[in-house]
Amino acid sequence: MTEKQVYLFEEGNASMVKLLGGKGGNLAEMTALGLPIPPGFTITTDACKSYYKQGGQLSGELQSEIRRAISTLEKVKDSRFGDANQPLMVSVRSGSVTSMPGMMDTILNLGLNDETVLGLARQTASESFAYDCYRRLIAMFGEIVLGIPSLLFSQQLENLKIHAGRESDGEITAGEWKQLTGVYQLLVKEHSGIDFPQDVYQQLNMAVRAVFRSWNNARAKVYRRLYSIPHDQGTAVNVQAMVFGNKGEDSGTGVLFTRNPSTGAKELYGEYLINAQGEDVVAGLRTPRRLAELREGMPEVYDHLAALASGLEAHYRDMQDIEFTIENRTLYLLQTRSGKRTAQAAVKIAVDLYEAGEITKEEAVCRIDAGHLDQLLHRSVAPLEELKPLAIGLPASPGGASGMIALDAETAEAWKQNGSRVMLVSAETSPEDIHGILAAEGVLTAQGGMTSHAAVVARGMGKPCVCGCDQLSIDAEERIIYLGDHILKEGDVLSIDGTSGRVYAGDVPLSDPEMTPELLKLLGLADEIRELKIYANADTPQDARISRELGAEGIGLCRTEHMFFTGTRLPTVQSMILADSREERLSLLERILPMQQSDFEDMFKAMNGLPMTIRLLDPPLHEFLPNLEQLGEQLRRLQLTGGGLEEQKRLKRMIAKIRSLQEKNPMLGLRGCRLGIQFPEIYDMQIEAVFRAAKTTAHNGIEVRPEIMIPLVGDPRELKELRALVDKVASEVLGEAFKSISYRVGTMIEVPRAAVMADKIAEHADFFSFGTNDLTQMTFGYSRDDAEGKFLNSYLDRNILSGNPFQMLDQEGVGKLIEWAVARGKEKKSFLKTGLCGEHGGDQSSIFFCQQTGLDYVSCSPYRIPYARMAAAQAVIAARDEAANKKAEAVILPIE
Amino acid sequence: MTEKQVYLFEEGNASMVKLLGGKGGNLAEMTALGLPIPPGFTITTDACKSYYKQGGQLSGELQSEIRRAISTLEKVKDSRFGDANQPLMVSVRSGSVTSMPGMMDTILNLGLNDETVLGLARQTASESFAYDCYRRLIAMFGEIVLGIPSLLFSQQLENLKIHAGRESDGEITAGEWKQLTGVYQLLVKEHSGIDFPQDVYQQLNMAVRAVFRSWNNARAKVYRRLYSIPHDQGTAVNVQAMVFGNKGEDSGTGVLFTRNPSTGAKELYGEYLINAQGEDVVAGLRTPRRLAELREGMPEVYDHLAALASGLEAHYRDMQDIEFTIENRTLYLLQTRSGKRTAQAAVKIAVDLYEAGEITKEEAVCRIDAGHLDQLLHRSVAPLEELKPLAIGLPASPGGASGMIALDAETAEAWKQNGSRVMLVSAETSPEDIHGILAAEGVLTAQGGMTSHAAVVARGMGKPCVCGCDQLSIDAEERIIYLGDHILKEGDVLSIDGTSGRVYAGDVPLSDPEMTPELLKLLGLADEIRELKIYANADTPQDARISRELGAEGIGLCRTEHMFFTGTRLPTVQSMILADSREERLSLLERILPMQQSDFEDMFKAMNGLPMTIRLLDPPLHEFLPNLEQLGEQLRRLQLTGGGLEEQKRLKRMIAKIRSLQEKNPMLGLRGCRLGIQFPEIYDMQIEAVFRAAKTTAHNGIEVRPEIMIPLVGDPRELKELRALVDKVASEVLGEAFKSISYRVGTMIEVPRAAVMADKIAEHADFFSFGTNDLTQMTFGYSRDDAEGKFLNSYLDRNILSGNPFQMLDQEGVGKLIEWAVARGKEKKSFLKTGLCGEHGGDQSSIFFCQQTGLDYVSCSPYRIPYARMAAAQAVIAARDEAANKKAEAVILPIE
Repeated sequence: MTEKQVYLFEEGNASMVKLLGGKGGNLAEMTALGLPIPPGFTITTDACKSYYKQGGQLSGELQSEIRRAISTLEKVKDSRFGDANQPLMVSVRSGSVTSMPGMMDTILNLGLNDETVLGLARQTASESFAYDCYRRLIAMFGEIVLGIPSLLFSQQLENLKIHAGRESDGEITAGEWKQLTGVYQLLVKEHSGIDFPQDVYQQLNMAVRAVFRSWNNARAKVYRRLYSIPHDQGTAVNVQAMVFGNKGEDSGTGVLFTRNPSTGAKELYGEYLINAQGEDVVAGLRTPRRLAELREGMPEVYDHLAALASGLEAHYRDMQDIEFTIENRTLYLLQTRSGKRTAQAAVKIAVDLYEAGEITKEEAVCRIDAGHLDQLLHRSVAPLEELKPLAIGLPASPGGASGMIALDAETAEAWKQNGSRVMLVSAETSPEDIHGILAAEGVLTAQGGMTSHAAVVARGMGKPCVCGCDQLSIDAEERIIYLGDHILKEGDVLSIDGTSGRVYAGDVPLSDPEMTPELLKLLGLADEIRELKIYANADTPQDARISRELGAEGIGLCRTEHMFFTGTRLPTVQSMILADSREERLSLLERILPMQQSDFEDMFKAMNGLPMTIRLLDPPLHEFLPNLEQLGEQLRRLQLTGGGLEEQKRLKRMIAKIRSLQEKNPMLGLRGCRLGIQFPEIYDMQIEAVFRAAKTTAHNGIEVRPEIMIPLVGDPRELKELRALVDKVASEVLGEAFKSISYRVGTMIEVPRAAVMADKIAEHADFFSFGTNDLTQMTFGYSRDDAEGKFLNSYLDRNILSGNPFQMLDQEGVGKLIEWAVARGKEKKSFLKTGLCGEHGGDQSSIFFCQQTGLDYVSCSPYRIPYARMAAAQAVIAARDEAANKKAEAVILPIE
Repeated sequence: MTEKQVYLFEEGNASMVKLLGGKGGNLAEMTALGLPIPPGFTITTDACKSYYKQGGQLSGELQSEIRRAISTLEKVKDSRFGDANQPLMVSVRSGSVTSMPGMMDTILNLGLNDETVLGLARQTASESFAYDCYRRLIAMFGEIVLGIPSLLFSQQLENLKIHAGRESDGEITAGEWKQLTGVYQLLVKEHSGIDFPQDVYQQLNMAVRAVFRSWNNARAKVYRRLYSIPHDQGTAVNVQAMVFGNKGEDSGTGVLFTRNPSTGAKELYGEYLINAQGEDVVAGLRTPRRLAELREGMPEVYDHLAALASGLEAHYRDMQDIEFTIENRTLYLLQTRSGKRTAQAAVKIAVDLYEAGEITKEEAVCRIDAGHLDQLLHRSVAPLEELKPLAIGLPASPGGASGMIALDAETAEAWKQNGSRVMLVSAETSPEDIHGILAAEGVLTAQGGMTSHAAVVARGMGKPCVCGCDQLSIDAEERIIYLGDHILKEGDVLSIDGTSGRVYAGDVPLSDPEMTPELLKLLGLADEIRELKIYANADTPQDARISRELGAEGIGLCRTEHMFFTGTRLPTVQSMILADSREERLSLLERILPMQQSDFEDMFKAMNGLPMTIRLLDPPLHEFLPNLEQLGEQLRRLQLTGGGLEEQKRLKRMIAKIRSLQEKNPMLGLRGCRLGIQFPEIYDMQIEAVFRAAKTTAHNGIEVRPEIMIPLVGDPRELKELRALVDKVASEVLGEAFKSISYRVGTMIEVPRAAVMADKIAEHADFFSFGTNDLTQMTFGYSRDDAEGKFLNSYLDRNILSGNPFQMLDQEGVGKLIEWAVARGKEKKSFLKTGLCGEHGGDQSSIFFCQQTGLDYVSCSPYRIPYARMAAAQAVIAARDEAANKKAEAVILPIE
């Protein structure tokens, strides 16, 4: 190991983010810009990887490098690490490549021990300050490095306050702090078996290892899985000379956004605490002041901060999230990064910067985390007069949501798994609650501000959140909550409006999302860039209309069986399935035909001029029949009473039919085109309905573009036979209109064999639509229903799979089959249209894959369309960047 | 259409079999050799294809060609077709490319009508002969061309005999035959609505069309499916001048094999009927004479026949099956072809010809229809003294079999589908009964000789058959049979010994097959040629020993779960699965370990020096638990009586556990390595048992070569993790012995994704074994259990699939994935061992594929090993031939 593993801030810059982490890179960049950054250094992510390779040890070389870096700090700060007179104190913080807020740990004031604390007291002439710092160090070190519950420390602090009759921390005397330090040390010894280390290098060594270790703690893993961050990226560690926001009333610490992260408005937005260290702000235990108050309290500091903020935004050409500390009216910056923002803010900021000429069209589009568009398209609470809120809190993450009150993450998760909608209600959340937030429709907390854990995480996930609702109190014993003078039980339904901060009892009407002008502008920019067409998965005329409004350029998947399920139709469909003879079935199909026809007519109207891909019947027939166990129960009951002989007969017949249709592995059974070949009369009826509708609608001046899709094809001969049926019925029904209505016939590629034999299948297909749900199931040999409950999560936890292949297209396996099929299909038929219509059509990485593979379109659910438009544009930009990189490499290579 | 569609026999030869069919090609060849062949011509298979293309019509051109060919016949025979004085009569017979005995139809005496029959009578001076011929024509034409049941004709013949008091056909007078002709004509009119055609060209035209049509009758399709003959091959039609075996006591017709088709002994073997036409022999209504009798009756004819037979065998260098007719002591040959033979005969003939220097080693090996080897390895009735047969018939197809008596094909098929073993017992069989023979363990008939339908078909399928058992009579009404003075009911168990012709009541002990010296010799020749190694699928020490005796060079698949099922172990296994805690499971696994270890020890001993591939637990755990419905029933019963509270609790617990393990698509659920990763303790135990057994056995001087196979891998990380487990346990258990025992770790490739990612998986694998059962299921998206009952047969009938992919490896789809995986795997690791262990390992075309793809071995069930050895040798020869053809083409191409 001869690679340099420690970089002074002076030695790095923002482009070294992979090695130094985001925080380290930005600290280096700001240092180079000459900003007021306390000196420090970064231990690289490579060092983290070595740590894991060496079984959790820091190499001797790394330790020497750290010592050399510390001596540089000592020189700059004119102090010495561990020195009793002029002690150097540092913070130790994690800094991963991709921001993982709240996931990693921070230790402040490191370098204090029973001796140096005295030096600090002398230096600052404040024993009280020195011991406050020391007790903080012991508690943080105890918690993070030694794993002692933080509650034990805060209980001791509370005890002390009660005994000494102190209302707030500020009233505590130096002697009392000192006494607490002793108590904390005993606590450390008792719970960890070791003494709090007096050797400051040992402190540092242990802290660095703890940061590295925290990379693999459970909540970090959950977060990475949630955001698809590679597990082998590792974290950097930043060691920085301390500045103190807790030196009294002219000191403080805070967080600042250069624009409003909720709305995107161009205004300084932030919070700070006087006489506090950074941990106090994030923990949300004290309610911070709004930044505007700083302007009054310390105007010169405020102006300095505003100037720095404006400079940083201009430098990074993006809204910044800045941490700062004021030590005796001197301003220090501790971190800057691109600020997390709501989707609404992201859109507004991107458009504002684009219109101000600061960033290009492509940059504007890439400023949107496509996932956040979901949030914009969340439903919101309808502004009705009669709705009276029970309480109002901070509008921490916009959107409306309703759900059953769950008082802890475990309950939320369990109820969600049972299919309930859940509202997580909690005093405050911590990283341990991530799975609860994930499971919940929304989050309501009693404490914490707009930058508290709950707020940050909920915004990240695009979930509505109301924070700091001080009318809320929780009785965790009795499982009830108080909202003002209202009492609700756990399990009662509660609604929140994260846009206004309002909290309501019961369900409230939610209104559909609206497109803001900024969003329309941005989507317009995306449309200028993207190459993939965006289609919708829409089964009803209503879905078709919404899709078109949201920008769909066609319907990529209309599941005709969904029309079978609607209310009054199901009994007819059931009789059709139970029919004993082909004749009986035919006559029942005659009755279903006009229903399907009328749906198709409405959809053709909605899609006037755009293609509409209609998939013929796909699921196994038994899915339309009632539950076997329930029927058995009904029959047994009748038999006991001896009544309803006719009904008994009917039940018996139905039970026998269902039994005969049952399959061991229905996923791999009689469905899709296999049904169409066994019972051609069903497909015949559906095709007839399509073309009758097409003919009628076209007569009214609508341009119809039906594309008939045959599902589950695995052999070219299946498609050949069914295509012949489509052509036959089309020419019969259309007659004269035949020439003016052009239609396509294609297939879903969802069986691995179809992908393998794509060239042969292409001979009979006008288009391929990759049905990646089933293709994933069969390529992996995973039944989604079974896998997700039985082993998929454990595979994700153990990193056997890097992502859930049902959410993110598996590019190594399923993707290879798609690439193969597209290449071989287009080789055979260059004008073959190709698209994707699985759930992956709404997933960013999958859309990127579609762009790379040269598909013509992706199809996704209606509300996912804006997301897909944006992601498709980003995919083009990413591909260009990659090509540019390749070109650059290609230029370099020949010189070598 | 300008291609020539009719070939005179003088114009063709045996190499034109694709165009002329087997019969046509050989008739042409024999004509060229100057043998006594009645003149004739062949209508090509291309004409058959045109017939289907033209919707069942003969083109004008074809009809002209036929007329021209008929005029040539007229010249040669000095007669005219349809002429009242010198009438020409012809036979019309099908002749497909691949022999399909009994599948297609024949019409004799065509050209007779109310006028020409008088000419024939004058010519032959026998009105009786002429009208016998005419009534035969009307009956055959009525049945085959017009679809009138033959029974109606034979009933009229019976009526006539009763009224006229005639015992046999020979006693019937000319007047009576003439009268019958009239009756038959009325019958034709009545049942078909048309008159029997008097225009002889119309007769011919209709007959040719009927032959073409018969290509697609149901039984022909079944036969082709059974023997994988392409449906689009078509049949030729042979039109040949009649010679008459029914001209009295110095005429006759018969069938001859140049060697004994049952034993292979070098002797003329055949049967004939005096004063008969060919149909009489095949129909089995009259019991024919043995050929030896001809030597006494007509010695000069016999000698001529023997000389011709010997010449034909020498010419074709194979045993021939010859049809002949004697017309007034003049011998004519009507057909020659390679004779069908039992496996035993095939082996003996091949070895005899090889040792006589007539054929090469490669030819000898290719003379065996690998399928027939099964027959040799059928079990036979043990020769026990106390076994007394109920009756004795002709030993028509060797081997012993037992089964429930079924009196018709439908019953046989239905019972077989219910899982019963069936014995088809019938007066005689006809092509309509094929599905019954297919379903039966063996066949017993009352009538017919060694060349009767039942005998030929049963030999072809390698099923035991006893024919012409005249002690057998059947009461189809009462569903009982008489065997001498014994009465048995349908459903009673009956046994036959097809080698001796003996019939026994009930089950009889069957002894394992023996390898004859000829078979050993031939397998030795195959071993010299083949390149693929042959492994066995063997789960028990007994199977391992048998496999080795039959020539296995290793075990390719030992399914360890089969050891879990054996009697006393299952309860322990069930408790292990039901265990609530890991601890409880571990302690139960401790108890299973020595059982598995002891099995492995015995198997290692049996395989001394050869590799043994051990697959870790594969099926879902619920397969080991009892049936849910039965448990529910038990519980309900207990609840009603209120008894067995403890038992109720146990049942409830078990039901809950089974419910929790149930899956919607178990094929795609928690099984294979997914289990191994979820419950590492189970795999841990199995691996420990393997290596403990290896260590113990190796101590006793046995060479052990364990190869641990991880099932259902879909991602390289699964294999990586489990391989690490194997290596860990191996080093722990083996300790010192570690270096002397070498083992391999590999995986089954049975999930499509594993094939796609083969390069990555190869990094962690020493071998790939293609599990083509599951790979076929997932690549097609067919659940075998569901597909075979629900749609697979209909797909085969409609020719959507050309073969059942679970029997014959699908080379276009599944095969492509295998080729890809082998290529990518070996690219990554050149010494990667590859094999196939699905059921396809015992299928000929699949073995050919393995050879082409360059696999190292195939693994099949023990008794299939000789078959696989032979097929593997044939695969090498086929590959050489193909390469030679390609080379020849390559030489030709540049000249073009």
